[in-house]
Amino acid sequence: MKRSNQRKDDGANPAGAATVAGRGDTLTERLHRELKAEILSGRRIGGTRLPSTRQFGVQAGVSRNIVLAVYDLLLSEGLVVSRRGAGTFVRDGAARPSQPPPAFDPRVLQARIRSPWRDGGLTDPIAASAPFDFRIGIPDTRRFPHDVWRRSIARAARELARRGGNLGPSDGLAPLRAAIARHVSFARAVACTADDIIVTAGAQQALDLIARVLVTPNRTVAAVEDPGYPPAAHVLAAAGARLHPVAVDAQGLVVDALPRAATLIYTTPSHQFPLGAVLSAQRRAALIAFAHARGAVIIEDDYDGEFRHHGRPLDALQTLDRAGQVIYVGTFSKSLFPALRLGFIVAPPWLRRALVAAKQLADWQCPLLEQIALAHFIDDGHLARHVRRMRRIYAERHDALTAAIQRDLGKALTLIPSSSGLHLAALTAPGKSAAALATRARNAGIAIQTARAYRRDHGGGDGLVFGIGQIETDAIDTAIRRLARLLTP
Amino acid sequence: MKRSNQRKDDGANPAGAATVAGRGDTLTERLHRELKAEILSGRRIGGTRLPSTRQFGVQAGVSRNIVLAVYDLLLSEGLVVSRRGAGTFVRDGAARPSQPPPAFDPRVLQARIRSPWRDGGLTDPIAASAPFDFRIGIPDTRRFPHDVWRRSIARAARELARRGGNLGPSDGLAPLRAAIARHVSFARAVACTADDIIVTAGAQQALDLIARVLVTPNRTVAAVEDPGYPPAAHVLAAAGARLHPVAVDAQGLVVDALPRAATLIYTTPSHQFPLGAVLSAQRRAALIAFAHARGAVIIEDDYDGEFRHHGRPLDALQTLDRAGQVIYVGTFSKSLFPALRLGFIVAPPWLRRALVAAKQLADWQCPLLEQIALAHFIDDGHLARHVRRMRRIYAERHDALTAAIQRDLGKALTLIPSSSGLHLAALTAPGKSAAALATRARNAGIAIQTARAYRRDHGGGDGLVFGIGQIETDAIDTAIRRLARLLTP
Repeated sequence: MKRSNQRKDDGANPAGAATVAGRGDTLTERLHRELKAEILSGRRIGGTRLPSTRQFGVQAGVSRNIVLAVYDLLLSEGLVVSRRGAGTFVRDGAARPSQPPPAFDPRVLQARIRSPWRDGGLTDPIAASAPFDFRIGIPDTRRFPHDVWRRSIARAARELARRGGNLGPSDGLAPLRAAIARHVSFARAVACTADDIIVTAGAQQALDLIARVLVTPNRTVAAVEDPGYPPAAHVLAAAGARLHPVAVDAQGLVVDALPRAATLIYTTPSHQFPLGAVLSAQRRAALIAFAHARGAVIIEDDYDGEFRHHGRPLDALQTLDRAGQVIYVGTFSKSLFPALRLGFIVAPPWLRRALVAAKQLADWQCPLLEQIALAHFIDDGHLARHVRRMRRIYAERHDALTAAIQRDLGKALTLIPSSSGLHLAALTAPGKSAAALATRARNAGIAIQTARAYRRDHGGGDGLVFGIGQIETDAIDTAIRRLARLLTP
Repeated sequence: MKRSNQRKDDGANPAGAATVAGRGDTLTERLHRELKAEILSGRRIGGTRLPSTRQFGVQAGVSRNIVLAVYDLLLSEGLVVSRRGAGTFVRDGAARPSQPPPAFDPRVLQARIRSPWRDGGLTDPIAASAPFDFRIGIPDTRRFPHDVWRRSIARAARELARRGGNLGPSDGLAPLRAAIARHVSFARAVACTADDIIVTAGAQQALDLIARVLVTPNRTVAAVEDPGYPPAAHVLAAAGARLHPVAVDAQGLVVDALPRAATLIYTTPSHQFPLGAVLSAQRRAALIAFAHARGAVIIEDDYDGEFRHHGRPLDALQTLDRAGQVIYVGTFSKSLFPALRLGFIVAPPWLRRALVAAKQLADWQCPLLEQIALAHFIDDGHLARHVRRMRRIYAERHDALTAAIQRDLGKALTLIPSSSGLHLAALTAPGKSAAALATRARNAGIAIQTARAYRRDHGGGDGLVFGIGQIETDAIDTAIRRLARLLTP
C-alpha cells in the first residue's frame, strides 16, 4: 500500500471530511510520469530495454533507489516486464495507440451527462486540518474504541466465513435492525421496531433513497433549511425537486416561512446544521401540524442527536407524529466513525417497501461484515458506553467553547444558544462578512468555516461555525483568544 | 445473533442471489407474533406481568423452551423487561398508541411514490436452495479462502484504526484503485490506470450511477439484451430510460437488431447473462462500429469474465474501443463473494468526474475497511491465486455439465455453446415451455431457473439455465440424469 500512497488521492473531498492529500510532487513521481508518458505515447517502443537502474540514475541525475522505485511502479502497472538477468523491457502493446479521430466529439457525449452531475461534486470549504481545528461534521475518531471495534469486526468476519458470504436482505440484517431499533427507542425515544428500520450506507444514502422515491422531477417542492446541510439540498435537487430555502433562527427552522406547496421538508431539529439551534417545542408542534394539514412529509435528519449536552432532549418529530408523515434518518458516522458508512431510516409503513426496493436497485444491501459487527457492538453495550463517554467529553468542549466565545468574542459575535451536538455557531453583525476573519484565522493556524458557506441565499446573515470534534478542551481557550486578537488589528 | 436468526429475513430477495429465508412459520414465530401483537395493541398493558414460562407453556400447549425463546425475543425487542426474581413484565410504553385519524389518507402519500419503486423490488425466481442447486448468479463461496480474507480484514482494521476512520476519496482509495487497475489490465487486458477506476458498491451501484448520470428521463433510448440481467434493465428504467430489448443468439447480442436511436447499450459480452454465449469477434467489431457511428455509449458488464474455461479470451469491448465510448463494469461478487459489495467502473475520461460526483451524492464512498483489505488481498496475490484455482474447478463443472446435458438431455434441449463463466443454458424446442420442467425439477430436489424468467419479451424462446456455483462436479451427473427422467414420464 505504501507505494501508492505517494500519489495524491484525487477524489472529490466531501464537505466536512478529512482528506488524505499527499505532499505534492516527489522526484519519483515526476520521473515515473515522464517515463510512463514515453511508453504510453509509443516513444519508447514495446520490447526495447530500459537502461539499467544505475545507468538511468546517472543519466537522470537521481539516486538509483528512485529509479528502482520508478521501475517498480511501471512493472506494477504492467507497462514494463522484467526478465531475470536480462533487465527491464517495455511491454509489447504497452503504448496506447494514437487515437483515431473519434466518430463523435467527446463534447457530444459529455453533453448527455445530466445537469446535477455535470459540474462535479461538492467540495469542502476547508479540506485540510490545522493546529486548531474547528471544522464541522467530523467526530473525534481518535477517542473511538478502535480495539473494541476490531474485536467486533474479527467476530463478524468469523461469522461471515461460516455464512459463506452470499447476499442477505436488502433492508439490512435482522439482528442489526433489531439492535438499531432498541438503540433509537432508548437513546432518542423514537417509536419503532426492527420492522421499521432500513439499514443504509450512511445518512447520505438514506437521503438519496428518500429523494429518489418521493421526488417527482420538476414537480415536488422541497423545503430545506437555509443555511443548511448542502448534501441534502444537493440530493433533493439531483432528484429533480424544486428547492425552497427556508430561514433558520435561534429556535431552528422558521416553520411559518414554509411554502404552502412544500410536500417534502428536510430539517435537522435536534441540532440545526450548521447553526446549532434546537428546534423549539412550539415549532415542533407547528411543523407537525403543517405536515398534517398540508400532507407534507418531513425528513428528520438526526445526525448527532445522541450528543445532548444539557437538559432533557425534546421529543423527536417522529415521536410526535402519529400519521406516518415523518421519516427519521440516523447515522453511525458521528457515534462510530464516518468511514464505516452505516446509517438507517425509520420509515413509515406506507413508504417502507418502496425504500427497500430503491435500496436494492442502488446497491442490493450494505456489506454484511459491518452489519454483523455493528449488531454485536450495539448488543454488547459498546455503542451506549462510547456515546456516554463522548457525550461528557463533547459537553466539556461545548461548555469551554461557549464560555470562551462569550468572553473573548462577545463583542463581535453573537452566540446561537445550543445544547446539543458537535458544533455551534456565532453570528457576525448584520452586513459584516465572516470570510475575511476565517481567512485570517486560517493563516493563524485555525481552521474554521463561515456560516455563509452553508447558505443557498448568499444575501443572508453570516457567522462562524465551530466544530468540536477535532479540538481538545484545553486548546479551545488559546484558539479563541488567538481568534479574538485577529479582530483587533 | 442466533436469536434473531429465527425470524425470517424479510428483505426483498435479489434475483440470482442466495436467500437467507427461514423454513416457514415455526411455533416460536407464531407465538411471538401473537404476543407481540397483544403488547403493541395495548391488549397486554405496560407493567403487567407475563405468566411464568412454565405456566404459559401449559396454557399455550407448547414446550417451556419455546416460551423461553419467545420471551427472549420480546426482551431483545424491548417490549418486555425482566426483573430478577420477579419475572417478565410488559414494558411501560411498549404499546403503540392507537393512531388518530391521520390528516392525510396514507394512500394520498403512497400515490407520491415514484412508479419505479411503487411495486417493490425484484424477487428471485427461486429463492431457496435444494439438494441439487443450479441457481445462477451465485459463486462457490464455500471454496473462498475466508481465512486469508480474514487476515486481510484484520490487517485493514488495524490500519483503519491508525487512520482514525474519517472519510476517504469518493472514487475509492488510491491503493485499491491501483490494485484494481493492475488486476483488470492483467486478467482482462482492459486498458486502464488507477485514474480511470471508480470503486463502487458492487456492479449494481456501478450500473445505477451510470444510469443516473447518462439517462435523460423519457428521452434516452437504452438497448438491453433479451433475455438479460433484470437488475440492469430495472436500473435503466428507474432512471427514466426508454428500454428497447434486443435479441440474443449463440453469438451473443444481435447487433444488427439494435435500434438506431439507442444511445446507451447494456451488454454482457464475455458471457451473456443468462444464456452464456460469448459475443463473437465479428459482433464485437460491429458493436463498436455502431457505437462510433451513432454516438452510442456501451456499458460492458463483465461480471464473471475472469472465469474463462477454454481458449484465449476475446478482447474486451473497452480494449477495442478507441473513442472512450465503452464503460467497463467489474465486480468482486463472483471472484470474492457477493456480501462484500465491491465492484468498479473503468470510466472514459469525459465521464469520470460526473460519475464520482454521483457516487459522492449516493453514499460518499465505499466503507474503508473492505477497500483497504481488498487492496492487500489483490497486492498479495490472493485474488489471482483464488481466481486461478476456481477457474479450474468451474471448468471441471462446466465440462461435466456440458457432457451430461448433451448425453442425457440432448434430445429435449439444445445446449448454447459457452466457454466462460458460472452458468450455461440449454434451449427447449420452439413453443415448448420450460416452466413445467423446472417445477417438476423443484419437486425432485433440483433448483433450476428458466430462461424465460429473464426475458422482457415473454413470447421469445425458453430453456433452462444451469448455474455451477453451488453444485459439486460429482453431483452433476446424478442431477442431470434425474432431470432427464422427468422428461420421460
